[in-house]
This record gives sequence, C-alpha cells and structure tokens, in this order.
Amino acid sequence: MSNTFGDKWSFTSFGESHGAAIGGVLDGVPAGLHIDFAQIREALERRAGKRREGVSELGIEGKGVSARAQREPDEVEWLSGVKEGVTLGTPIAFIIRNKDARPEDYEYLKHTYRVGHADKVYEQKYGIRDWRGGGRASARETAARVVAGEIAKQELSAKGIAIHAQLIQVGAETDPAKFTDTIASYQREGDSIGGIIECRINGLPVGTGEPIFDKLQAHLAYAVMSINACKGFEYGTGFGGVAQPGSAINHLSGGISGGISDGSEILFRCVFKPTPSTPKAGVKGRHDACVAVRAVPVVEAMTALALVQFL
Amino acid sequence: MSNTFGDKWSFTSFGESHGAAIGGVLDGVPAGLHIDFAQIREALERRAGKRREGVSELGIEGKGVSARAQREPDEVEWLSGVKEGVTLGTPIAFIIRNKDARPEDYEYLKHTYRVGHADKVYEQKYGIRDWRGGGRASARETAARVVAGEIAKQELSAKGIAIHAQLIQVGAETDPAKFTDTIASYQREGDSIGGIIECRINGLPVGTGEPIFDKLQAHLAYAVMSINACKGFEYGTGFGGVAQPGSAINHLSGGISGGISDGSEILFRCVFKPTPSTPKAGVKGRHDACVAVRAVPVVEAMTALALVQFL
Amino acid sequence: MSNTFGDKWSFTSFGESHGAAIGGVLDGVPAGLHIDFAQIREALERRAGKRREGVSELGIEGKGVSARAQREPDEVEWLSGVKEGVTLGTPIAFIIRNKDARPEDYEYLKHTYRVGHADKVYEQKYGIRDWRGGGRASARETAARVVAGEIAKQELSAKGIAIHAQLIQVGAETDPAKFTDTIASYQREGDSIGGIIECRINGLPVGTGEPIFDKLQAHLAYAVMSINACKGFEYGTGFGGVAQPGSAINHLSGGISGGISDGSEILFRCVFKPTPSTPKAGVKGRHDACVAVRAVPVVEAMTALALVQFL
Amino acid sequence: MSNTFGDKWSFTSFGESHGAAIGGVLDGVPAGLHIDFAQIREALERRAGKRREGVSELGIEGKGVSARAQREPDEVEWLSGVKEGVTLGTPIAFIIRNKDARPEDYEYLKHTYRVGHADKVYEQKYGIRDWRGGGRASARETAARVVAGEIAKQELSAKGIAIHAQLIQVGAETDPAKFTDTIASYQREGDSIGGIIECRINGLPVGTGEPIFDKLQAHLAYAVMSINACKGFEYGTGFGGVAQPGSAINHLSGGISGGISDGSEILFRCVFKPTPSTPKAGVKGRHDACVAVRAVPVVEAMTALALVQFL
Repeated sequence: MSNTFGDKWSFTSFGESHGAAIGGVLDGVPAGLHIDFAQIREALERRAGKRREGVSELGIEGKGVSARAQREPDEVEWLSGVKEGVTLGTPIAFIIRNKDARPEDYEYLKHTYRVGHADKVYEQKYGIRDWRGGGRASARETAARVVAGEIAKQELSAKGIAIHAQLIQVGAETDPAKFTDTIASYQREGDSIGGIIECRINGLPVGTGEPIFDKLQAHLAYAVMSINACKGFEYGTGFGGVAQPGSAINHLSGGISGGISDGSEILFRCVFKPTPSTPKAGVKGRHDACVAVRAVPVVEAMTALALVQFL
Repeated sequence: MSNTFGDKWSFTSFGESHGAAIGGVLDGVPAGLHIDFAQIREALERRAGKRREGVSELGIEGKGVSARAQREPDEVEWLSGVKEGVTLGTPIAFIIRNKDARPEDYEYLKHTYRVGHADKVYEQKYGIRDWRGGGRASARETAARVVAGEIAKQELSAKGIAIHAQLIQVGAETDPAKFTDTIASYQREGDSIGGIIECRINGLPVGTGEPIFDKLQAHLAYAVMSINACKGFEYGTGFGGVAQPGSAINHLSGGISGGISDGSEILFRCVFKPTPSTPKAGVKGRHDACVAVRAVPVVEAMTALALVQFL
Repeated sequence: MSNTFGDKWSFTSFGESHGAAIGGVLDGVPAGLHIDFAQIREALERRAGKRREGVSELGIEGKGVSARAQREPDEVEWLSGVKEGVTLGTPIAFIIRNKDARPEDYEYLKHTYRVGHADKVYEQKYGIRDWRGGGRASARETAARVVAGEIAKQELSAKGIAIHAQLIQVGAETDPAKFTDTIASYQREGDSIGGIIECRINGLPVGTGEPIFDKLQAHLAYAVMSINACKGFEYGTGFGGVAQPGSAINHLSGGISGGISDGSEILFRCVFKPTPSTPKAGVKGRHDACVAVRAVPVVEAMTALALVQFL
Repeated sequence: MSNTFGDKWSFTSFGESHGAAIGGVLDGVPAGLHIDFAQIREALERRAGKRREGVSELGIEGKGVSARAQREPDEVEWLSGVKEGVTLGTPIAFIIRNKDARPEDYEYLKHTYRVGHADKVYEQKYGIRDWRGGGRASARETAARVVAGEIAKQELSAKGIAIHAQLIQVGAETDPAKFTDTIASYQREGDSIGGIIECRINGLPVGTGEPIFDKLQAHLAYAVMSINACKGFEYGTGFGGVAQPGSAINHLSGGISGGISDGSEILFRCVFKPTPSTPKAGVKGRHDACVAVRAVPVVEAMTALALVQFL
C-alpha cells in the first residue's frame, strides 16, 4: 500500500526510473471530467525543467539551468479510464516510457553508495538495489505524481478551487529577480542550493478537513513531505510566528481553523534541500543546482491530490 | 474514519470535552506487553501541566504557570485488552471521565464565536456546535492520545527505541533557564506566546519508512501536525538549511534518507502557536500562557503512534 | 484494524466477555440523527433470546428456548457522540458492562479445549488464552454489533431503506409453525441444530455497490460471514440455481446486477451451524439449542453496517 | 479504492474490455520472488478456455466448448517491479493489450440493455455506459486478477501453501466424466448452465485469520463473491450441514475455527450462475455455455490474493 496515496481518489504509482516505464493508476475520478491534456503536458515540462512559461516566473532559461532539460520528453500513454478526452469513472491508468535511459551514466555507481542518497538504506532494507538512477527513489517518479495531480487540479478547478505554488526563496535570496543568477552560480561551481516554495489555495469551501487526526494541515503536510528532498512544512504564521504574542496573530490563521478550512486563502510553505550528488561532491552524471525549481509543479500536484480526498 | 490514527496499531479517539467521558481504543497491540501505569499517569500529569518533573526541566512551577493544573485529575479506567497489567492482544479500550466539567465557565460563549478558535467552522461544517469547551476540538482530547501513545512508547522502549521531546524555544527566548520567567510574564499580562519543541528518536532500526508516499518524515509530519495549534514541522536541517550549499550539509540528514531511517538519531522540530483565547483578547475562563509546554508529551505520544505503524 | 468494520461508518468493537465491559465506537455517523433507544433495546433483547416479539414470529417463548435469556440484561451506557438523543457527528462510544460474569461456570475449562471451539487456535495464535467464556470469541461480542448496527438501521430507515431478516429453516424443518417444537426437542436432548436465515432489503436506491471488488454482494457476504457460526452465504438463486438453465433465471437476480443494486428487493440467505458445545458433547454451562434464533438481529445489524458504507 | 483488493498485497485492477489495455498493479510483493511466467500463461489460457490441461480434467476439448477460445491471446507486458524474472520489492505493473477488440459484434447493443447484465445499472450509476463488451463489467477484467493471483500463488507455494480449485458440479450433474457432454448440449441449444467449484487450501499455518471481523472465511467469501456471476459461498459443512445436529458435525470445520485456520485442509465451495446473454435469449456474439469452467483459475487467483493479505 506504500505506493498508493489517498483513499477517495486513490493514486498508485509504479515504475523504476530505468525500467520499461513509470506510470500510475488514479481510481475514484468521477465520470464526465474533460481532461486538458495540454495542461498536463505543460506541468510535465515544468517538472522536467524545460518550460519557459513555468521558468520565466523566475526569469530562468531552462537550458542554462538544467542539463536534464533537453533529455526527458515525457510522453503520456493513456491506457484506460478516458475516452475521447472524457473520464469514464473507471480507473485512469497511464504510463511514461523510459526512452532516455542511459545506464552507462550510472554504471560506475554499481559498487558505490552516493553520499546523501538513499542507496545504502535501500540495499539494507530490500537486499536488492536497483542502482541505476536510484530506482524508485529517483525524482523521475514525480512525473507520475504530476500527471495524477494535474487531473486532480482540473477537477478542483471545475469546482472553483485554484492552487498556485511558486518559488519564494533560493538560498538566502528572496528577490525573485535574482534567482536565475543565484542558481546559475551554483551550477557553474558544480554545487547546489536549497529553496522555499510557497503555495496558495483559493476557493476551497468552508468545512474542508476533519477536526482530530484528519486535519487539513496534517494531510497537506503528509502530501508535501512525501516529496523527495522536502525538509519542512509550515502554514500560516509557521515557525516565524513563534515570537508573536497570542494577542497579535489572530488574523494569520493560514485559512485553517481547528483543522478545517475557514473559507479564506490557504497559505503554506515548504523547504527543499539542495541535492547532495553534485560534481563538487564527486558525483558524475546530470545534476540540478536547485531541485526546488522543478519541485514547484510537484508541490501543486501533491496539494491537489491531498485536497480531492476531502471532496 | 477521521477519528482513527494508523492501520497497524489503530487508535480511535472519542469523547466530547464536557460529555460523560473521553477515551480511546487501541487495536493491534501484541499480547504480552507489560503496561507501566505509573508512566502513563506521569505523562498525563505533564499534559495537564501538573507535573513538577516534566515542568522542572523548564524550571516552571505548575501552579504559577497553569491555572488548569489544579483541575483535571485524569484517572484512566481500563475497559478491555489488559488483564493483570499485561496486554491480551485484543483491543485496549479506556476512558477518562469528565469529572471537572464546569459548563458555567463557557455558558457566555453559547451565542458567540471565540476569535481564533474553530467554533465558527464547526458550526458551518456540522450544523450543530457543542459550544461547551469546544467539544471535540478541545485540547482535552489529547489526553486520550497521551494514554495510547504511552503504550506505544512502552512497546518501542521494549525494542530499544527511545523518544524524547523537549521545549527548545519560547517566543524569541532559546535559553531554557529563562523559559519560566518568559511564560510567567505573558501569563500576568493575560497574553500568550508560542514555542518550539524538538524531538529525538534513538535506537530506530535502519529501514523504517517506505520510499514513496509512506516516507518516515511524511508520517511524522502527519502525526505531529494533527496536534492542535501546531503550525509547522521540519527535520534535519529544516527551513534553516535553505541557505547551506549541497556540498556542506550531507551529514545533517536528520536520520532519514529517501524516506527511510538510516540508523542514526532522528531529529525533528515543530512549532506551536500561542492560544488566541486569552483574557487580553477578551476571552474569560482558564488560559494557558504557552500551550507548547503541555504539548511536549503529546508530541511524544503522536511520534510513538506514528512509529509503531512501521514495526 | 481487525476489530474495525467499514471505512465510512467505521465500527470498532472491543471487550472480553468476562472483562469489565464490552462496547464499541461508531465513527462517521452524521450529526442530527435521532436515536430510538427503545429499538436498540429491543434488538439487544432479541439477541439475548429474551424478546417475546422477536421470538413470537417463530412461536417460541424465550424462557423455554434459551437458558441464557434470564441472565444478560444488556444495558447500554453512552459515553460520547449523542446529546439529548441526537447524534453530534462525533464518534459514538458505548459500553455494556459485564454484570453477569460467572467465571466459575467456565473454571473447569481452564486446562481443556472445548471441541469445535476456537480455544486451541487462540492459544496457538496469541500465546495467551483468556479461557473464561471464550474471551473475544464469545457470542457476547455480537451485542456491540447489534448496538452499532441498529444505529445504522435507523439512519437507513430515515432514508427509506428497510432490512428484515427471519429464520426460514431449522434443521430440515421449513414450516415456521414447527420451529419451536423442533428446537425444544434438541434442547431437551442436550443437543443443538443449525438454521437458515433469510434477509430482505427494500428501498435501496439503484446504484449501490461498485462493479469490481466492492460488489454489493461481496460486502454483504463479508459482513455476514464475519458472524460466529455462519457457514455460508448466497443471494438470489444461490446454490439452488445451479441446475436452472440461463434462459430461465433472468428474473431472479436477488436485486443485484454486476455488483450494483438494481432497485428491486435484495434477497440473501445465510446458514448457521449448531453450537458444538452442548451437554451431549460433554460441555457444561449455558447452551443454545439453535444459535440461528439469536443470530437474526445480528444478521440485520451486519447488513446495516455493510450498507451504510455505500451511502 | 473500489478497484483495489487488499491492503498488504494491494492489487489495483484497471482497463476497459475494449479500450487500449487491461492490467493491474500489485504492490507489496517482497523482493526476491522468482516469477514462473509459464505458470501465469497457463492460468491465463485456462481462464480463456484454451487450455487442454486445465480443461482435460473435465474431459472437455477447448474448441468445442468455447468459441472464445480461439480469440484471446493474452500476452502480458511487464512494466515494472520485475527484473530478470525476480521481483524487486517495488510495485509490479503489467498490461494485456486488447488486440482482439471487435466492437462491431456489440454495435447493435448500443441502444439496448442486455437482459440479466449490468448494462442498465451502469448507465444509471455513472451516466455514461461504455456499451462495447460491458466495459469494466466484462469477464475480461478477470485476466488481470489471474496474473496478480498467480504471483500470489507462487509466493504461497514457496511457503508450502497449495491452492487447488476444480469444478464439482455442472447443472444437476456431479459426475465429472459427464461434464463435457452436459455443457456441449447447452452450447448446442444456445443456452447456458451453472456450476459449482470446490477449492482446497493445504499447508496454511495455524493462526491465519483474525477472530472478529477479519475472519478467514469472511475474507475468502469477500474475495470469491467479487467474481462476476458468483451467487454463493460456503465452507465446511455449508448449507448442507443445517440438518446435522451439533453432536455430529464437530469434525467438519472446513479447517477454520473461530475465524482462524486450524492447520487442517481448508475447504470451500462457490456457485456460478449461467450467463443470461445467450443466443436462446436473443443475444448475439460469443457465449459461454458454462462460465464456471473458466472461473476455476479466477477462484484460485482470488483465493491466493485473499490469503497473502494474512502473511
């Protein structure tokens, strides 16, 4: 069950990064939803670091920032659940074939563990390690999340609920105009840097969430913390609110009260650590100077998947 | 299902704060565990703000800090699952009767909503609001979590796994020697202040957690964020690590790699906002100047309940 | 989780038959349902074999049929979730204290296994056996099912859905007028006999059930087969339909098509074996000549709990 | 979630019978299991009615019995979870492409409902009906169950647990030597007939199953009753035992006591109704005179999937 997220809209993810394909099954989508395939493609391109639109918010040219951008044309093959662009109410299964597998890039890792990666714990846990590209642990698995999450976003959008995430900090830099340069400098040095993503949810009806364990913020935290490299989650005043007295902060609830949405904008932030496998650390192969850039559509996807469980 | 936590050790919480009783059912505990009732009592007293031991770490005298301390003698009545102090392998049901219900303290709230509380969203969601003491939303519900969590802690302890949480910040103050004075000053002013709790897990075997959605940190975040007033969760380098380059932080993983424990100490932090219902804000009745103090045993309890799901 | 039934209306059962109490928690009941406590009491009395009304359908006087009838006054103590007879939308917790525990009846079983009972497998499975009255395996556990099931029935009833079960066969006897005599003769001989219960559901809307694994009949079978002593379940034409050609039986669907209710009456049957622990088999203590009599309200309860999962 | 079976070995089924593919994802299979692909192929051929071996037990030649036999070459494409024939511990995803879609066979059904089929309730439930071949309701969906179930069977087999199902009755006929002729006569008449399948489980360790809701028989019933056309389930003495006194039947427990396996052979039976869509009933297209023949490997598959949940 550990590869399944949610029980109302149940999303099961599968696929090794260098096997035949990655993919997913999304069960629970009602019949009659019109799928916007172009929007799914756009989100996948943002995740792959290829998308000018997604990147231009940051003023970053895809090419200069991510060497991976040229390499992963994520084409979705739809297997079931959709006919002529409309959902049937049956499970939606899809795959993305792994065309661009270059195991030779990783061959030298066969007998080593990458520092800061899960290679070692995987081998300890499973006895088997698919060392090529990290197997299931690869960031590539998030492409399946993006496809499923975009479907969830489109259902939410049809109900007037909008999710928007964006990068608000890169390293110590908080001025978006300077994000491109900051990242490029780490890229040049063969190093990497962390980032903070802020996500806003608008249009969520009052009453979403449950008062005890299934608090809205608890499910958002679970969803977002399940993304690779995410090290923290906060909403409303978050950690920064610790020094504000109770008499001052009543109006900064982050849109959630007692675990339940109050009808105002929901606001949360999450932090992504820099990837530890960099040329500077002696790891060859592709490297992202700031994984937070490509995490933006994944945060939106997981947020959408968390929210549809409460519909 | 929203009042149930976990599926291996399944904990169901029930009870309104001013009804007959609160309580819980803990299903999945193996037969043969010897229950240390004194330890459960101690944790309940720490949660109730009565415990010199729990409080003395902070140098705080219970009486001066929490007016509630004198009022909630939480006596656990065991209904099933335990015979002569040993678990039977059957569901453990327990209740704590609400002896100290003083609805007259809350009578004036019948026709008002407390600022910063869930009163309003509850009424919008359910159509009914049990306005006396917040009903299910009351912090009193956490007493049941502490009982169940202590049983989980004792099972973990028998396996060599130790959980220890403590307050590390009150407002802007990070020197524990000064926490008492800081809190007392807010108490005197009829105001309140937030706090940060740090939790360390030692002895957890390598391999705890699952690589995709059921990452260890995702479940810890879910568990801790389900506690009232918790506004954020971070592990390892957390939000503070955003400005450290990838080449520098490899050794600060927080004991989790790719969602799976690596055998080293697990370290996380969480932040609790100040209660908004204070005399200063015009709300009569009991008030806690720093709810984070009493949240410490609750954080330990939820951490334990999260961990036993992976045993 | 093995003591929990259902995920929408989640019912958790607890309690050893000779511990302090048995009881349950029913989570998921909407706010505003008016509970008919008299109806719950009546169902409990039918289960206890005390109820003239329930029994008179069979023409059986409670007293003559079940020696247990005089002994179990099942008084429900409501702990949470209900205020002034109306549900709050919070978990409904209730207990029935075990006043009538007579462990001395069972003392001689301490070092023996009852033939045809689960005593032996319990000890093999758990290492501990609470030999007094069978512990959790006792039929007494079904009292908690009846309480929860009656609440479910009342919600269904409010939606126009009616469940009615009745005994249609005792041993080889199918004439209800003769059931009393048949059972009484087995009682006198210190022996026991099986029975078949038929259950009809009316008013269920078209579309209840899911087409693949969560077929309506699969969930009804699961619910009913979880009752002690139940050895079989069939719906519509059942086993008897095996010899009817396809061209003949189209109209006997039992109200379910492709796993989904079709709006007509649902009809199923289940069979209960005779209890093996009889005076004739050398087992002292109370004995029921035909457990199927008291199983009727339990079948209704489990049917109701299965159906509310699909609301 | 309604297309997912089980929570330890979680099997999600997808695919419309005349869409691109059917398939499934099996999550929870441990790493290191060697898959016997030939055995999976054999089970698929038995399900497709093509297999001499499977059929010869009945003395039936595939060709004469099922017109479908020549038409469905079920080739499994493995997408993930298996490398060089060994499981990786990651989700196993597989598809079977629908090569043989002949929608023209079903075109005339576009504006009609087949008698005794779920066509009408589907349209009422979903608003959309994929009328071509019954969509999800098609028996074709069971091919995915057979693939997943065979993997479960192989894991069980590695643990010394064997499952064997066989047809024991066709219509009123109980002599296997006469099954071929009986079925052939219904085939010739354009009619159909029901059948009873018996399933035996050997080698199951003592202690499998849980005492309250998750009784072994309840889960077997749920699994088997989820197969299309199955109208009843019984174990041990079943319905036939109703007329045997308690003093006589102690030794016929069917291998389960109080919901838990007792180490002896488990024995259950299930009944399959005849298909109602026959030439005699005016329905053109392929038709099976006795669907119970092809249900045998599906019963084994669902039994295996039910059992692995308890490992």
